Amino acid sequence: MERIIDFIGLNNILRRKKNSQKVIILDSNTYDNCLATLIGEVESLCDAQIIEIDPGEENKSLETYTTIIQTLIEQSSDKNTQLIALGGGMITDLALFIGATYKRGIDTYLVPTTLLAMIDATIGGKCAINFGEVKNQIGTFVKKITICLEPVFLETLSERQILNGLAEILKIALVSDANLFETILQNDPLRIVNNEEIIHNAIKLKQTIVKQDPFDKNYRHILNFGHTIGHALESMAMKKGEDLLHGEAVASGVYYTLDLCNNLSKETTNKIKQYIAQYYTIQQIDNVQELFNYMNSDKKTINNEYNFVLLEEIGKATINNKISREQIEVIIKN
Amino acid sequence: MERIIDFIGLNNILRRKKNSQKVIILDSNTYDNCLATLIGEVESLCDAQIIEIDPGEENKSLETYTTIIQTLIEQSSDKNTQLIALGGGMITDLALFIGATYKRGIDTYLVPTTLLAMIDATIGGKCAINFGEVKNQIGTFVKKITICLEPVFLETLSERQILNGLAEILKIALVSDANLFETILQNDPLRIVNNEEIIHNAIKLKQTIVKQDPFDKNYRHILNFGHTIGHALESMAMKKGEDLLHGEAVASGVYYTLDLCNNLSKETTNKIKQYIAQYYTIQQIDNVQELFNYMNSDKKTINNEYNFVLLEEIGKATINNKISREQIEVIIKN
Repeated sequence: MERIIDFIGLNNILRRKKNSQKVIILDSNTYDNCLATLIGEVESLCDAQIIEIDPGEENKSLETYTTIIQTLIEQSSDKNTQLIALGGGMITDLALFIGATYKRGIDTYLVPTTLLAMIDATIGGKCAINFGEVKNQIGTFVKKITICLEPVFLETLSERQILNGLAEILKIALVSDANLFETILQNDPLRIVNNEEIIHNAIKLKQTIVKQDPFDKNYRHILNFGHTIGHALESMAMKKGEDLLHGEAVASGVYYTLDLCNNLSKETTNKIKQYIAQYYTIQQIDNVQELFNYMNSDKKTINNEYNFVLLEEIGKATINNKISREQIEVIIKN
Repeated sequence: MERIIDFIGLNNILRRKKNSQKVIILDSNTYDNCLATLIGEVESLCDAQIIEIDPGEENKSLETYTTIIQTLIEQSSDKNTQLIALGGGMITDLALFIGATYKRGIDTYLVPTTLLAMIDATIGGKCAINFGEVKNQIGTFVKKITICLEPVFLETLSERQILNGLAEILKIALVSDANLFETILQNDPLRIVNNEEIIHNAIKLKQTIVKQDPFDKNYRHILNFGHTIGHALESMAMKKGEDLLHGEAVASGVYYTLDLCNNLSKETTNKIKQYIAQYYTIQQIDNVQELFNYMNSDKKTINNEYNFVLLEEIGKATINNKISREQIEVIIKN
């Protein structure tokens, strides 16, 4: 389970490790927009080493991993080194995997700066990097994660970044809490960042799901709602060099998948689809074969059937629904 | 803690996973000398995919790791894939790290084929790969390891390979069990492979030590006896392209380190040194500066003092002994 602290908590922990080297991993965006805030609030980091990498999902790669390991060795980082990740999910995922594997594990603290990372990437003990175009092929589960959750960073986000995170909150609500879904509907999405209750609520819901299935064997799969199609859309966009954020891909994935949820009333389906269409651009799928290729590489396929998470009702999802290629073609063409 | 099984146990486990892909990772040595035995005894592996890599410590690298991950992705290995490592410590270490990280972890079974791997590499939950010339820089701790321990593979070993493993048994005896040390002295070292009691005894002793400190924070460091110098010797040999096995390096490391153990009687020190000198070539250290450079990169050094494990008596070791550069120079030149 994650331990959630604030700037003061982080400073207290790091102050007690005063003889340890501190290393901040960040990208050029968080270098410009967040580093001064972090160091201003956490004075134990004033003499930290900085490792800056290029932003973008394509850098959550084995190549960047290797470069950072090389830098850590060159700067004599040892087993007592304290690693701090400052950034969105790309940075926290990469840094968590570095922290889990460098010299068989060093202390790592995540400081998520995006709504998506606060809700999604940093919660649940998973970390991974991509391999070529295929997402999250190499990674591990981390048992104890310390997260410094500070809403101040949300002030630096664009509208697009806020909606990116909102998509995951929406998904969590759809699979586990009808009340949260109603709360989302009643709030201006762009003001969600001012509503700490929604954020903490979504984190707690995700933690409750993860706790029941920490190694992602079955029940936790409900968090993959909208992701079977969403991940494929993301891979397709990455290959084409198109700019598509994870939350945007998931929003489209949820939108399409709703048409497979036969137990939902037409009214409910439309209510959710309408909300999504209001705030997100639904990705058009021209190359259906390519979509299936990526879905094959992402999930287990048996006899041309695909594994989907579906909604029974708002707040209740089921896993392991087998959907045929033909059924998927119908909802995509609608 | 490791779960130790035999061929029958491995076959039973794999038979229950009949719809899963099986993948055997091995090197060209174990391909030639051990694969037929394994498949002959474990029929569930008859249609396993084979991933063969070049032998040698220099291939316990990030490059080989990357190549294997690529192969697994290309052959559509999924989360249910069962990974079997057949080889010495290089193969088991590499495969364990692959198994711990591919798709965030897949089932992995170790089939050690050398005495060293049976005693040392596969016991203790550690895995790692090298980074450039520096050993074991990237890795993790694995909580549950299943080891198929079959003495039949020891019959394929050369004398040199047996002595390579014996060095680690000797070290375990020196730091934790005077009786085992006497047993070793009373047996022909080359027949140690026929003495399953010695092997199981050494494994149990190591497991007892590891259990008290699974994440290698303090007490478990006694297993590093002889390794501060031994690891540096190994790195120096690897850089020069010299053929030095891990156990051989440790034997020399123990030999030198004994002269730092002031609480041992002269008689005891000589008894151990004499035994080592009888079966191992003591590495001469011409370039003392290079030795210190590698010792610096391996262990934490404060104020030019080095961290050593020393013996109080046979069967009892202490950790965190600070030894100055000058003291080390004296024992090396003796």
